[in-house]
Amino acid sequence: MEIKIMKNILDRNQNKANEVRNLLTSKGVLMVNIISSPGAGKTTLLERTCEELGGKFRIGVIEGDITTDRDAQRLKKYDIPIVVINTEGGCHLDSHSISKVLDSFDLRNLDVLFVENVGNLICPSQFDLGEAFKLAIVSTTEGDDKPGKYPMLFREARAVLLNKIDLIPYTNFNSGSFKSDLKKVNAQVPLFEISCTKGDGLKEWYEWISEKIIISR
Amino acid sequence: MEIKIMKNILDRNQNKANEVRNLLTSKGVLMVNIISSPGAGKTTLLERTCEELGGKFRIGVIEGDITTDRDAQRLKKYDIPIVVINTEGGCHLDSHSISKVLDSFDLRNLDVLFVENVGNLICPSQFDLGEAFKLAIVSTTEGDDKPGKYPMLFREARAVLLNKIDLIPYTNFNSGSFKSDLKKVNAQVPLFEISCTKGDGLKEWYEWISEKIIISR
Repeated sequence: MEIKIMKNILDRNQNKANEVRNLLTSKGVLMVNIISSPGAGKTTLLERTCEELGGKFRIGVIEGDITTDRDAQRLKKYDIPIVVINTEGGCHLDSHSISKVLDSFDLRNLDVLFVENVGNLICPSQFDLGEAFKLAIVSTTEGDDKPGKYPMLFREARAVLLNKIDLIPYTNFNSGSFKSDLKKVNAQVPLFEISCTKGDGLKEWYEWISEKIIISR
Repeated sequence: MEIKIMKNILDRNQNKANEVRNLLTSKGVLMVNIISSPGAGKTTLLERTCEELGGKFRIGVIEGDITTDRDAQRLKKYDIPIVVINTEGGCHLDSHSISKVLDSFDLRNLDVLFVENVGNLICPSQFDLGEAFKLAIVSTTEGDDKPGKYPMLFREARAVLLNKIDLIPYTNFNSGSFKSDLKKVNAQVPLFEISCTKGDGLKEWYEWISEKIIISR
């Protein structure tokens, strides 16, 4: 019985996700679903990306958080449209919550809509929000074993950002193990090795995401 | 309907958790449910604790993982009973899975049973496994805003371990903000500031957990 219910939930989520995707495609808006553990650097990546690409593209953000609007507060200074979804205990966003808040955006005046999902390496990877693609962020301080131990997200992701590379010297993170594990679950996925606080490696990320935004317009 | 089903799941989980708790109490075994984000240091804490307390107490471990037995492999060298529960995509352990594996342990010859839950700061905090108490681990590299943004676990935890304090100099972690946020969600909870890799602050943790084990015998 539980399995059937779960299937119903996923089916209804998928139907709404398809609607959302059709709407965004028709408006030429690229929606990116950003997923990571708590504190891996999703908001800092958005800060950096708004700084660098805010003058080039019209950016919007949906902030998924269990409670509080702290991440949204950090992005206020970029003068972009931001909507917060508080899940009130819920461990992931779904396509229905996304669909409801899309009305708050002027989609004709948007090139890219970043969705910062709830900080969770597991549940969000199972829910299609209607995004163009999922983006995985993982930080070096979480250890090099994450692609092997939490394969779902890494399998689903269109790109992987390995953040906090500036902290590698102070940890036992093994880049070789990380890359070989990642290859096993997703052989072709592009990997960006970055430090959002120091700025390392971000140029390649800006180029990659810019290309994706331009193609989807 | 979803809410009703969820309540049924939680009710059934709670009933089984009570059974598990009664059984463990009758055998004098302290079960500790360890919860954190991926890579916050649950396994490293267990390694350290087995090293230090393995001669003093009879320790058992249940390793909850989505897939792989990597964490269990890391603990094999301590020659303690370990059972792995692979959730195959599931984002948390529940009391039924715990109940099923308890048969694999000789409970009369156990003082403490550590349960390493799936790496997830959200879902595991909602499921009683029949533990004596939950233990929260959070690492400095995840940022100082975690108690405010993910209050459920911090509210439920009997103790909080702040790990990776050796990395504070390389991050923007603010200890004052962290402690003030933690106080707001759980004013009385003991906080241990530790580094599992360097060994800092672990003495206080060993003393605290030893006392809990002795009391429950």
